[in-house]
Amino acid sequence: MYYQTICQMKKQLAQLDKWLDAAEAFAKTKSFEPDRFVDLRLAPDQFPFARQVQGACDTAKLCASRLTGKDAPTQADSEKTLAELHARVQSVIKYLDGFSEKDFAGAATRVISQPRWEGKVMSGADYFMEHAVPNFFFHLTHAYAILRHNGVDIGKRDYLGALSLRAP
Amino acid sequence: MYYQTICQMKKQLAQLDKWLDAAEAFAKTKSFEPDRFVDLRLAPDQFPFARQVQGACDTAKLCASRLTGKDAPTQADSEKTLAELHARVQSVIKYLDGFSEKDFAGAATRVISQPRWEGKVMSGADYFMEHAVPNFFFHLTHAYAILRHNGVDIGKRDYLGALSLRAP
Repeated sequence: MYYQTICQMKKQLAQLDKWLDAAEAFAKTKSFEPDRFVDLRLAPDQFPFARQVQGACDTAKLCASRLTGKDAPTQADSEKTLAELHARVQSVIKYLDGFSEKDFAGAATRVISQPRWEGKVMSGADYFMEHAVPNFFFHLTHAYAILRHNGVDIGKRDYLGALSLRAP
Repeated sequence: MYYQTICQMKKQLAQLDKWLDAAEAFAKTKSFEPDRFVDLRLAPDQFPFARQVQGACDTAKLCASRLTGKDAPTQADSEKTLAELHARVQSVIKYLDGFSEKDFAGAATRVISQPRWEGKVMSGADYFMEHAVPNFFFHLTHAYAILRHNGVDIGKRDYLGALSLRAP
């Protein structure tokens, strides 16, 4: 289910890309600078919108990279505009497009490490379930919530995207 | 991975239960009524805190129920206090405790329907990935964000909970 989850993250990032358009449209109706969204935050000691977008992007990118052992491109976290955030999101979607199900063979038993874990490690299975998936949705939903809190016209359908509904 | 995800949802709900304690502690330091949190929201046309908690609880409960074909208890969505929200969260954790891995055999190919889907259906696999998991984290993170926005002293570690870190 690792590959299927990466596909779902890709879908959610494509939705996030549309929220950026909605933010820009809202700013235009209210005649303020759309890039003002980049620095908005829900609490003074929380990450701003740009960092939430970067966090969602990085969590998806590093999840795919760490579970497969493939290198991920480093990115500078220097985005200051909605256009640059669009580019960041698109670059990660493109990176994730390069994976297929077979890349994730053996992912569960890979040994995952991070500098902040001070020498300790997690199995791929634990890292995926306890760290990557919750963190991805944490940053994605905070990005959504910051826009929603500030009046952008998005709703649950824009969060979920199209569902694979079919006739019974 | 269905059962493992239900276990992760249970872990996240236990973290949510601790955020309720943190909200109560913060209210006491500021000398306001802790139950005031129940009605707070990030936008006037978004669900308030209580409904976000109910949403996280219901999404986890119904995910387990629908993927296994086991009945879920109905709940009234009548919580008006943090104590009642504690009870709601605990009741769902207890419900999820009743599942084991074998209950989820065949989950991927179950036919899932909901009244709001107007007669259409989803496979268990699609429902899980496109609907249940994203919705669970949506409501969970909104509950977190509402508290965080209003000054409650919680952080990313309170969101993730303990990680299965081990020596290399």
